[in-house]
Amino acid sequence: MPAKSLLLSRNDLDFLLHDWLNVEALTARTRFTDHSRESFDDIIDLCHDIAEAHFATHNKKNDTREPELVDGQVRLNPEVKDALDKVVAAGLLAATADSAIGGLQLPCVIQSACSAWFSAANTATWGYAFLTMANANLLLAHGSAEQIDRFVRPMFDGRFHGTMCLSEPEAGSSLADITTRAEPRAEGTYRIFGTKMWISAGDHELGQNIVHLVLARIPGAPAGVKGLSLFLVPKYLVGSDGTIGERNDVVLGGLNHKMGQRGITNTLLNFGEGKHLPLGEAGAVGELVGAPNRGLAVMFHMMNEARIGVGASATALGYTGYLKSLDYARTRLQGRLPTDKEPSSPQVPLIAHADVRRMLLAQKSYVEGALGLTLYAAKLIDDQRTAETDEERDRLGLLLDVLTPIVKSWPSQWCLHANDLAIQIHGGYGYTREYDVEQHYRDNRLNPIHEGTHGIQAIDLLGRKTAIADGAGLRALESLLQNSVNRARAVGGEAAHLAGQLGAALTRLADVTRRLHAEPDLTTRLANASIYLEATGHIVLAWIWLEQFLAASVREDDLGGGKRAAARYFYRYELPKTGPWLEVLATVDRTTLDMSPNWF
Amino acid sequence: MPAKSLLLSRNDLDFLLHDWLNVEALTARTRFTDHSRESFDDIIDLCHDIAEAHFATHNKKNDTREPELVDGQVRLNPEVKDALDKVVAAGLLAATADSAIGGLQLPCVIQSACSAWFSAANTATWGYAFLTMANANLLLAHGSAEQIDRFVRPMFDGRFHGTMCLSEPEAGSSLADITTRAEPRAEGTYRIFGTKMWISAGDHELGQNIVHLVLARIPGAPAGVKGLSLFLVPKYLVGSDGTIGERNDVVLGGLNHKMGQRGITNTLLNFGEGKHLPLGEAGAVGELVGAPNRGLAVMFHMMNEARIGVGASATALGYTGYLKSLDYARTRLQGRLPTDKEPSSPQVPLIAHADVRRMLLAQKSYVEGALGLTLYAAKLIDDQRTAETDEERDRLGLLLDVLTPIVKSWPSQWCLHANDLAIQIHGGYGYTREYDVEQHYRDNRLNPIHEGTHGIQAIDLLGRKTAIADGAGLRALESLLQNSVNRARAVGGEAAHLAGQLGAALTRLADVTRRLHAEPDLTTRLANASIYLEATGHIVLAWIWLEQFLAASVREDDLGGGKRAAARYFYRYELPKTGPWLEVLATVDRTTLDMSPNWF
Repeated sequence: MPAKSLLLSRNDLDFLLHDWLNVEALTARTRFTDHSRESFDDIIDLCHDIAEAHFATHNKKNDTREPELVDGQVRLNPEVKDALDKVVAAGLLAATADSAIGGLQLPCVIQSACSAWFSAANTATWGYAFLTMANANLLLAHGSAEQIDRFVRPMFDGRFHGTMCLSEPEAGSSLADITTRAEPRAEGTYRIFGTKMWISAGDHELGQNIVHLVLARIPGAPAGVKGLSLFLVPKYLVGSDGTIGERNDVVLGGLNHKMGQRGITNTLLNFGEGKHLPLGEAGAVGELVGAPNRGLAVMFHMMNEARIGVGASATALGYTGYLKSLDYARTRLQGRLPTDKEPSSPQVPLIAHADVRRMLLAQKSYVEGALGLTLYAAKLIDDQRTAETDEERDRLGLLLDVLTPIVKSWPSQWCLHANDLAIQIHGGYGYTREYDVEQHYRDNRLNPIHEGTHGIQAIDLLGRKTAIADGAGLRALESLLQNSVNRARAVGGEAAHLAGQLGAALTRLADVTRRLHAEPDLTTRLANASIYLEATGHIVLAWIWLEQFLAASVREDDLGGGKRAAARYFYRYELPKTGPWLEVLATVDRTTLDMSPNWF
Repeated sequence: MPAKSLLLSRNDLDFLLHDWLNVEALTARTRFTDHSRESFDDIIDLCHDIAEAHFATHNKKNDTREPELVDGQVRLNPEVKDALDKVVAAGLLAATADSAIGGLQLPCVIQSACSAWFSAANTATWGYAFLTMANANLLLAHGSAEQIDRFVRPMFDGRFHGTMCLSEPEAGSSLADITTRAEPRAEGTYRIFGTKMWISAGDHELGQNIVHLVLARIPGAPAGVKGLSLFLVPKYLVGSDGTIGERNDVVLGGLNHKMGQRGITNTLLNFGEGKHLPLGEAGAVGELVGAPNRGLAVMFHMMNEARIGVGASATALGYTGYLKSLDYARTRLQGRLPTDKEPSSPQVPLIAHADVRRMLLAQKSYVEGALGLTLYAAKLIDDQRTAETDEERDRLGLLLDVLTPIVKSWPSQWCLHANDLAIQIHGGYGYTREYDVEQHYRDNRLNPIHEGTHGIQAIDLLGRKTAIADGAGLRALESLLQNSVNRARAVGGEAAHLAGQLGAALTRLADVTRRLHAEPDLTTRLANASIYLEATGHIVLAWIWLEQFLAASVREDDLGGGKRAAARYFYRYELPKTGPWLEVLATVDRTTLDMSPNWF
């Protein structure tokens, strides 16, 4: 393992996994008995090594030489395949899968720690692996045994790759308006016709095949999302024995050219436009996954994983930007302290300046907070999967549901802001393409958009997740936070002081939520959903920091000092921001609704 | 004049210039008697036309085909010169200069309105013109008559271009550490040796010559900024009769490759490295501008203009992004209102959604607020120049001094945020390079960095501008805001309500400022200077919005409705953010200082 990395802090990761989350305790559960702290640590070491040696090394090249169309074929940088081969060889695509299918049967929380290295090193190249894993995981949960044999095994082997195809040119956030249709054929297959947009990894030559999971509508299905079904549509047909057959009619319509994330193709795909006639007939051949008209629910298996993955990826980009700006601030000499009026005295490192330290501390609080949050969410999945009672499983499921929009959105917003601060610390150098931080900022800007925009997550949180089951999800969250508040109060001292602030914010949030849920007009209720998401997110992160503060209380080393200082920063500079946000919500403000469109 | 623009709103510009600032009243002053409302309007029309026809047309090309070095020469897109030629032909480089030197003798506030069109259309191409103007204006104020003849006249004619050379590779924010030296020669000239970094427009082939204004140190000068002198160093020597002579030893060391603003060269320049031996001797030939060791004060003539220019440019980029996202929100159909559960009903335009309207209203409040602020600052310069008493001139000068860091920083921060929201409204499309908004976001990211970073402006405001003359600058600002508060209170109704909030914030700011100025430890006092800058900025913008609210009170049209709604938005969603910021300041928080560098 390299001694020191500018991708992530292994020290912090160990603190979060072991001191705080006590992941070793998972090995007592049946699913994870083959593992140990050592096996967890070893796999994280391995990911760190691969990320440094094979991912970070072509991150800039991915940005400067984006995928090209040459004679109708997508040409990627060859380093992408080399890097992915290392991941496959380590068995990492099947990290969380059952050993029965060749998986490592690792906890999700360890897999999340593993992924963080790759995302930090090269988010675009890692995207191919991530989508393949999420695709495979969906099929493991909802596909037939035969589909698993024909498609999941080759994905785990690195021979096939995966995508998710939801959006269309006229249906982005509004999935109800998906028009791609799936016509049933006698033999039980379907023929798919339509156009999908924003499909990451939609075409490339990395392997032998690409497995598209496509939302489409069977003729006669109900309008809206209740009429969507999910189809498996491979680029090349696959026989029942796994042999690769003729070209399916899934054709690349064009590459989108993005601000960042340039190393991963983003595509327009045409299904059944007639360029190929597989098995002599028009339409892309597709197989149903799950039941008809249940496609969105099935797709959400992948979407929820993708949403948590987006938050984790945003976190990793924020984290590496933080470490790079920290490194720069320690080494770049510039200026003197305000009290030093002697211009001939030597210049001090940037980190000596209070404002630079403020920008570092802000980043630290965002990225280490977000890393805590994403690991916590991943462990919730493990806890849920291995829960001993249905009741416990339901409670954890509710908690995960209510946290998912926050896990997706908070890092996307604040770790992007961390990247902004990382540029600022670099000054003019940070604005150049010679330093990494400007790429991280551009790469990270995608995260508040894809897999459900910030506004969509907000409506999901306020309109659904905090309301369903008569508010049970919200109560589960409140009780989680209140337990920490109580624990910190019992500790006393500064912990109790922080707990007092968190407790007050939590009470206020509960009041405001009740007030909003009581608002009879739905449009008014949801008008400030984004602000609700941000306020709730900041309160959840304050909880994460209280937890980290408590877990670090026995640490007298630099890590302990840093954790306490970052928690203090978060409570003094960040948590109070929720005051004005909650005030807008408490008054059920209608300013935006009362603004006539003509007045803009 | 084109009917409708996506660069700026002419309607808003007219409101700000005429309804609010009453710029026509300036024509009563001796300096501007040759002008009229018509001449003001005509020149703005002309700028609008040139901006649309010759600047906006190659904005994307500037981004995708950045300047290249070909055989040691910088190759720009040919459209850059075509556009600048139009500006020169209209006499706009000398817009504010005396008619005696061929200037249009326009008020700065009108020139600022003119520039806004060009910045919105193509900030990179406009940069060449802006730097040339600022350079010429410095020489008009501080150069000798002979320097004005030899250099300013050709700049106004578009034959010469200008730069400002402050930073060096090891001296960015810390100007005290500039090491470029200027050795005096018998004939009264100097020989310059050193390297300058981040020099925009530092090399190109747009005209016959480039006039560099260079901060350097004469041997024996005091250490620090008090030992800096300013030199005029042309790329080609210029004879006393204006003829262009041999190549001076100012040599392009390399081009910086930036995240945005790609159309304007950004360079490393070597002075006196020995590539050329002008007049047979080593060293770039330079002429002193102003007195020895007074270089920084003289340079600040240009710097202050540049700082206000940065704010104005950030505003223009924010403004055009707002209008483009507004246009997209009006035309893109997506989704349905929360109350519409019928998926077969037609989709609504994005602008129908509360969250999209929130993002539009936020942008409107930022960009129209910032435009008001930058125009106000420009008019302050006019008022100061034409003040009838020394006392009035001093008061206006103090006000301009205290506002300058805010005019530079607030738009750089919040109009960049506006660009972020413009992307968000576009969804996935906004993340692609096919739409303009992602370029605006990248272009605008420079503005919090150059011409004094956010942190430098913050120290300027809290450490100097609010403290000098025993706090007279701050008192001038307070009195300006308090007058509006009193006026709005007298109006009553909603105006009085907003005034109450602004008055309270102003009182709190004054308390906090006193508390900070009373802090004996300088490092502690300045530790949260950036937050002080942001809080003061938001309060000043709340004042701008109160002023706009009052000026719009008689307007029953869409503009009036929009102004009132945007003011309301700012007071409900934005001004309250100052509460937590001021609280951090009031407690003279030392969290960042107490964080040990080892703890990161």
